[in-house]
Amino acid sequence: QSSVQIGGMVDVYAGSLKRSGDAASTGVVNSSGMQTSWWGFKGTEDLGNGLQANFALTGFFRPDIGGTGRNNSDTMFARDANVGLSGSFGRVSLGRDLAPNFVPMLTFNPFAASFAFSPLGLHSQTSSSRYRGQAWSPVVSGDTAWSNEIMYVTPKLGGFTTSFFLQLGEQAGDSGKNNFGVNTMYAKGPLSFGAYFQSVKVNNPVDTTVGESSVFTFTPYNRVTGATYTLAASKNDTWFLGGAYDLQYMKLFGTFNRSTTKLIGAADDSQYDLKANTVQLGTSVPLGKGLVLLSWARTKVEAKGDFSAVLGSADVQSSITRNTASLGYDYFLSKRTDVYSVVSYDKLTDTSSGVSFGVGIRQRF
Amino acid sequence: QSSVQIGGMVDVYAGSLKRSGDAASTGVVNSSGMQTSWWGFKGTEDLGNGLQANFALTGFFRPDIGGTGRNNSDTMFARDANVGLSGSFGRVSLGRDLAPNFVPMLTFNPFAASFAFSPLGLHSQTSSSRYRGQAWSPVVSGDTAWSNEIMYVTPKLGGFTTSFFLQLGEQAGDSGKNNFGVNTMYAKGPLSFGAYFQSVKVNNPVDTTVGESSVFTFTPYNRVTGATYTLAASKNDTWFLGGAYDLQYMKLFGTFNRSTTKLIGAADDSQYDLKANTVQLGTSVPLGKGLVLLSWARTKVEAKGDFSAVLGSADVQSSITRNTASLGYDYFLSKRTDVYSVVSYDKLTDTSSGVSFGVGIRQRF
Amino acid sequence: QSSVQIGGMVDVYAGSLKRSGDAASTGVVNSSGMQTSWWGFKGTEDLGNGLQANFALTGFFRPDIGGTGRNNSDTMFARDANVGLSGSFGRVSLGRDLAPNFVPMLTFNPFAASFAFSPLGLHSQTSSSRYRGQAWSPVVSGDTAWSNEIMYVTPKLGGFTTSFFLQLGEQAGDSGKNNFGVNTMYAKGPLSFGAYFQSVKVNNPVDTTVGESSVFTFTPYNRVTGATYTLAASKNDTWFLGGAYDLQYMKLFGTFNRSTTKLIGAADDSQYDLKANTVQLGTSVPLGKGLVLLSWARTKVEAKGDFSAVLGSADVQSSITRNTASLGYDYFLSKRTDVYSVVSYDKLTDTSSGVSFGVGIRQRF
Repeated sequence: QSSVQIGGMVDVYAGSLKRSGDAASTGVVNSSGMQTSWWGFKGTEDLGNGLQANFALTGFFRPDIGGTGRNNSDTMFARDANVGLSGSFGRVSLGRDLAPNFVPMLTFNPFAASFAFSPLGLHSQTSSSRYRGQAWSPVVSGDTAWSNEIMYVTPKLGGFTTSFFLQLGEQAGDSGKNNFGVNTMYAKGPLSFGAYFQSVKVNNPVDTTVGESSVFTFTPYNRVTGATYTLAASKNDTWFLGGAYDLQYMKLFGTFNRSTTKLIGAADDSQYDLKANTVQLGTSVPLGKGLVLLSWARTKVEAKGDFSAVLGSADVQSSITRNTASLGYDYFLSKRTDVYSVVSYDKLTDTSSGVSFGVGIRQRF
Repeated sequence: QSSVQIGGMVDVYAGSLKRSGDAASTGVVNSSGMQTSWWGFKGTEDLGNGLQANFALTGFFRPDIGGTGRNNSDTMFARDANVGLSGSFGRVSLGRDLAPNFVPMLTFNPFAASFAFSPLGLHSQTSSSRYRGQAWSPVVSGDTAWSNEIMYVTPKLGGFTTSFFLQLGEQAGDSGKNNFGVNTMYAKGPLSFGAYFQSVKVNNPVDTTVGESSVFTFTPYNRVTGATYTLAASKNDTWFLGGAYDLQYMKLFGTFNRSTTKLIGAADDSQYDLKANTVQLGTSVPLGKGLVLLSWARTKVEAKGDFSAVLGSADVQSSITRNTASLGYDYFLSKRTDVYSVVSYDKLTDTSSGVSFGVGIRQRF
Repeated sequence: QSSVQIGGMVDVYAGSLKRSGDAASTGVVNSSGMQTSWWGFKGTEDLGNGLQANFALTGFFRPDIGGTGRNNSDTMFARDANVGLSGSFGRVSLGRDLAPNFVPMLTFNPFAASFAFSPLGLHSQTSSSRYRGQAWSPVVSGDTAWSNEIMYVTPKLGGFTTSFFLQLGEQAGDSGKNNFGVNTMYAKGPLSFGAYFQSVKVNNPVDTTVGESSVFTFTPYNRVTGATYTLAASKNDTWFLGGAYDLQYMKLFGTFNRSTTKLIGAADDSQYDLKANTVQLGTSVPLGKGLVLLSWARTKVEAKGDFSAVLGSADVQSSITRNTASLGYDYFLSKRTDVYSVVSYDKLTDTSSGVSFGVGIRQRF
């Protein structure tokens, strides 16, 4: 058996981007329209008695500029850098590995892990739109992969595969700043569903902040005077439920997630002052050698507090709603290579709407 | 068929560098004497009906320090990061790929893509010498590879292979800041020739400047008072013609390129206020298992404007000439591995001359 | 023969770290408990007549965060980036390659190249503990690999393999700022021993400092007033002797190294104002499919000068002693994969002690 396999995927598209709140469209040749481009190494070693050792060392990259990572903050192997053991007990691994949110999120929306066009991905994980000049704060904090992680995956039990996640915050003398979570996935015949819970205090890929980190922000404002008040949260807890049903001639997708966040410096741990709810519905329909993809997501971010004292009593806007819908066609030239085109509409409360589109190609290796 | 190939090349030399304008010689162990060291992955997939998908993911590196890129500004895969389709129609690709200037420049000078010793490469693409304390501005702007690019290569037509290049500047609401160009290459029997045109407004590998970028600079001065006036250009247009003839006992090379540049903020688009002309002549002569290489280049950079008002009327120096000549011997231990030694002379107008030399080894993998 | 091999190793551990001088313990999932994680490419080409060309291109990485290098200062291929020729004359290489200290240091201590738990590695090469709030200055300067290097290895002569090392400082007009050194290694039957000398003026991986670099620091202080005086050295010379004897039921290890350092700006080259001596003793004992590892190191750093004038005459503390001991068990699941656990004690003069421990897994590929 070989000790190492090379793998990866290159995805580039040409198009035009205008998210809600953008002043104008931008013509682009951009990376990763349908999936984040990556490369790297993986290996599995048979140790006997059903025991295996396995490692993964993979990184994202941006083919449009030849850069590593999804952005300049990413480490080179931000996708996977871990080693572990698996056997009848399940799998244990150490290092940088999956976050609880990633597999459920991509499994139950038709655009999967597209952070350019998936409405669910855009709302959950990107800062793609602008609200009153500030970048959208992704409602699911802490990234799709976690550093400094201990991860345990159960064997399949009654159709369920369950994973436990713990990221250490690595603060001297403070063992309380960690991320943790769990997810579970089920699939049988045409039906599949899954769920996760995660609690995030530590940003990724590398957060060495002493004390509370800002993991989420939101800005209530006064519609009359324009005065703003920025809220920053140090903890983001997310619940997620998702499912899919495959009718052969079409597949249906649906997800719901709710995040609650604790404001930085808030004295009372039980006082969760911000919340964000996301609903996503989608479908994929086989057509020729490809799939028509359609998905819509709606997120409402809400500050529960009363800001009339700081913003003036009249017309305080303390909630915001984002609607995003995408329609695409993904045509497979082979199992490894597909071409796609997508159009996407985006609209935030009280903000100009935006339409984006792209035509791209993705090749796995 | 395999989905991925690994390839690369390591080139290191020991020597002494003193370019024109350097105060003293520097003893060095340096990277990439004959060619820029690189590594990476490439793959081709047969899709049937003569259609192929192909990707390339390759980066430069500096073996002397173990660093990535040609310098600290480079992205990791600054050499190639693209994916595309090829067939009877030619080839289309998206991502980071060749610039128009690269293949013609390396094909028609005997030192090919040596940016340490090729006179043409030094003048066109490096900031290797110093003029009045300022680094030489390479006369061909925009790098040898372009980001955010759409590239189309024709099939061979009448012996000519022609490529079209477009790099998007990706400016919101401004579709006018782009790079574009074309090149064509011809080879039959002992004769080969080629040409390119390119127009550059966007630096590489990543230029996010809003508005005009500085792609070229030049500093006229007053020889009596020493007063200087620095001109910065936002656009560099280059024409290039090159040819070679192989007489078996020697091969002859010649190139000519002219760049015109538009000053930043100049109101009139037709007013090109700087120009640079480069002539290069060279030869390679087989000797034993190696080649004797000889090349000379002369570049004249000229500001057309009248600077007497800003610099004083007497003795304004508004043009500069650079002469560089290199002589080397490249001995092949095998098809994959060669050792070489080169000596190079460099002289700018009104600046101390410099002599550099190196002895190195290059291994392909 | 294949032109390139991929190789590497992933090592991650979970544990708790408290070095001498740390205020508190830190719970961690950390990289590289037993050995520095790495990946990369190597190749050898047979050129005929016993001549070979070989290259290596390898880098360290941190699986806990997915980052490259041992730290953020490292270049991506900081482990190896070199090319050379080998034959009956020995081996010559150019680029980034081994420093004189590395192989002798790892060969003669039972924790080998563990920079998390080897007492010798911690004292020689890391800044792991804190003395009066300042990071420990590793007593062997200049890193375990050198950039801009010319290296020559003799063939084995009378059982000895000897290597010569020269790193150019690459200073314009100054050929005196270089690193150089030599090491020799001997092994016959149960006995092995080795030695090195190195003289370091240039930090790594990339030190472009003009003039003297700070390669070592130490801070004498007044125990009564607390006043401090920081000394910085521009040159570090190290002598090292090490040996091991394998009794089958246990292996014994011992090393001694002495560094002398020249203060920055000191007029007299012969005036070495700081010295550091390290003694290390260790053993490894086979137990089951693993090895029990035990090692202790003691380092005394001493400023020879009289600091009573600057620090007050009474109670000047101008020497410091560090004692570190580690006990571990390394169990091999296969030739490629092992699991380990280590506990380590650390104590500096006049500083709180620390206990660290870790449980980890290492897989080679």
